[in-house]
Amino acid sequence: MTTAGICTIGDEILIGQILDTNSAMISRELGYAGVRVREMVSVGDDKGEISRAVEDMLHRENIVIVTGGLGPTKDDVTKSVIYELSESSGYVTDERQLEIIHRILSSRGLDVMDINRRQASVPDRCDVILNKLGTAPVMAARFAEGGFGHNAVLYSLPGVPYEAAGVMKDVIADIQERFSLSEIHHKTIMTYGIAESALAEKISAWEDALPAYVRLAYLPDPLKGVALRMSVYGGADDAEAVFSQETSRLRAILGDAIYAEEEKTLQEVIGDILRKTGKTVSTAESCTGGLVASLLTSVPGASDYFAGSVVSYSCSVKENVLGVSPDIIHRYGAVSPECAGAMAEGVRRLTGTDFAVATTGNAGPSASEDKELGLVWVGVSSANAVRTFDFHYRNDRKRNIERFAASALDTLRKFILAETANK
Amino acid sequence: MTTAGICTIGDEILIGQILDTNSAMISRELGYAGVRVREMVSVGDDKGEISRAVEDMLHRENIVIVTGGLGPTKDDVTKSVIYELSESSGYVTDERQLEIIHRILSSRGLDVMDINRRQASVPDRCDVILNKLGTAPVMAARFAEGGFGHNAVLYSLPGVPYEAAGVMKDVIADIQERFSLSEIHHKTIMTYGIAESALAEKISAWEDALPAYVRLAYLPDPLKGVALRMSVYGGADDAEAVFSQETSRLRAILGDAIYAEEEKTLQEVIGDILRKTGKTVSTAESCTGGLVASLLTSVPGASDYFAGSVVSYSCSVKENVLGVSPDIIHRYGAVSPECAGAMAEGVRRLTGTDFAVATTGNAGPSASEDKELGLVWVGVSSANAVRTFDFHYRNDRKRNIERFAASALDTLRKFILAETANK
Repeated sequence: MTTAGICTIGDEILIGQILDTNSAMISRELGYAGVRVREMVSVGDDKGEISRAVEDMLHRENIVIVTGGLGPTKDDVTKSVIYELSESSGYVTDERQLEIIHRILSSRGLDVMDINRRQASVPDRCDVILNKLGTAPVMAARFAEGGFGHNAVLYSLPGVPYEAAGVMKDVIADIQERFSLSEIHHKTIMTYGIAESALAEKISAWEDALPAYVRLAYLPDPLKGVALRMSVYGGADDAEAVFSQETSRLRAILGDAIYAEEEKTLQEVIGDILRKTGKTVSTAESCTGGLVASLLTSVPGASDYFAGSVVSYSCSVKENVLGVSPDIIHRYGAVSPECAGAMAEGVRRLTGTDFAVATTGNAGPSASEDKELGLVWVGVSSANAVRTFDFHYRNDRKRNIERFAASALDTLRKFILAETANK
Repeated sequence: MTTAGICTIGDEILIGQILDTNSAMISRELGYAGVRVREMVSVGDDKGEISRAVEDMLHRENIVIVTGGLGPTKDDVTKSVIYELSESSGYVTDERQLEIIHRILSSRGLDVMDINRRQASVPDRCDVILNKLGTAPVMAARFAEGGFGHNAVLYSLPGVPYEAAGVMKDVIADIQERFSLSEIHHKTIMTYGIAESALAEKISAWEDALPAYVRLAYLPDPLKGVALRMSVYGGADDAEAVFSQETSRLRAILGDAIYAEEEKTLQEVIGDILRKTGKTVSTAESCTGGLVASLLTSVPGASDYFAGSVVSYSCSVKENVLGVSPDIIHRYGAVSPECAGAMAEGVRRLTGTDFAVATTGNAGPSASEDKELGLVWVGVSSANAVRTFDFHYRNDRKRNIERFAASALDTLRKFILAETANK
């Protein structure tokens, strides 16, 4: 299989000031095309460090992609490393890129200065792939077998993330010309409500029986649950058929813990169901403080089915806005199934929606009402029914709030599915 | 200067499925303690690859920090690499970590299985630093001078980001015992409302006049604004005095764009002011969908001053719950200063708080009411006044919502300061 390494350059990444998002983007694009990324490296704006890292990778990988280290404030360290590695003997100006530079700068009302012009100038042993969104072009240096023990190619991409993303299509096309890439297939199954280790145990027999060429990855996320990703590398003609069969087997084991058979979030799935059934939802939140509403409205077009939320952090808002009876709070406390149910009922009536979900619990750091720390009560309501469920977590405040919100979404999802199936 | 390398392990990072946030977090913590990170590497869950990468780094750096590659579903590849590197001759169980494992699993109602118990078992030549938030402890392998040409230490951290963050304090303490780190002083000034490049221009004369031994870093964050961090490396006795003088100079230039002289969030600063003045706040949110409330309640003890929020995503909730006059929405639209002001007034009256803030805007991907995409109106209200402000951003939906919420918090902060100063 064709392999690749990615090297990002920049002091700001090394000191933890900015996150390197280019590597993940490049890796996804390469993966789709059938190139396997085996290593990612970040080094500072230092010529010696860059040179060492890139040379090491060229010995090991077919393709090396470098981002950053270009432009006037970086002293173009990357360019001078490539100049030496490619054994160039001078620089040539790429007239097409120079034209782009003129166009971009003049559209911003800026003059083209020497430092700008120099960006179109590349080592003479490099090929150029144009960067239409920025001033620094992609430089490609190709090495003969003698160079690093195999045919290798080095691409230098601009560091600005949206420029790097913009050139990837042409870089992939160039790679496809150079290497005969193997096919690659993925299938992702989203699950919620079973912790990673319990999930591993639950599906271990299924996992052991997977065809040897199917690789499985567990991808846990506090807001999404655990995603299971099956991958088939190499030209398996029946990959889709295998995926579909294995997904059915998994469904038989996990049931409605599976909420999607593609990469999706709980709030997207809830949106899909509500839009399909023409139903609406609202939320009433105590301990989650608005996060459930925030997640629901992170989906574009959520206004089609989401009416609103009441964050009732104080008891007076629970009583006066949501209409929770003071008697409930007095007898059972705010962290109680009775209160969760009354909050859901209250917000559903107030907003006139078909469904509602409510949360009330102890996120921490301290517990109220002598109720357990990490306990949340989730209430769901429709015209037909009110149900309540408890969940228990042991994390810090931030993570507890996330878990509470995700549990509320998953409870809502199952409730809507059950209620709309009844009809 | 003591140097470090960071190695993150996981196929999910290499294929671009998840972003590596651990490296940036670890790098910031190390930098803060006076350790210079010179390289970051990501490799897959492959023993040979991990071994090669870690050994290479141990030759070059004083400290190597590895994250991930632990846990039942990863076959504990990292542990077996450390076993070999440390020349261990067996495994020992750390009883303190085993106790934590029992406590964590039983609090989740889970049985402790063999695969869980195995996490407390470490190579016998390693020291253990406890992981109180998760099941996999930190393993520390120390190498004598002979090993890699210098005294080197290898730390293996859990891959789950909040667990990795949770152990960093103890890892830093361990590093401080092993190495004599150069003294380092930091002072962070939090600013909001001025973009990084404009800020750089505005304070360029001040920056140029900084003493040569003071290093300045710009740390932008969508929810926090731009943090300016001054650092003094080496034993400068007067660092604190210099920081205090430079901070006063910066205040004279930036005024109330500075919201804290230490690492803080806008919501923490708002909480401080409200608690000090004994005042309360509520929010009414349209486009931010609950994020403003979610940020305010992310602060422990927020119930002391935060009553609640109405997320009025639909116009009917704006009218029926918040009491915004239908006439306002009809004449000016929901995305208008009139509506933002009425929402703030409405929620303040409904919840009986001293202050309120409201948001209404177009986060995208499409715009409503022929209003500009990326426009948000923020309304603030007290018993004395209602004010409205507009902000304009050009990002994707997610980022726009974050900017809107942060702008609302900053507007609220300035409004509360002005209103409470009047008294």
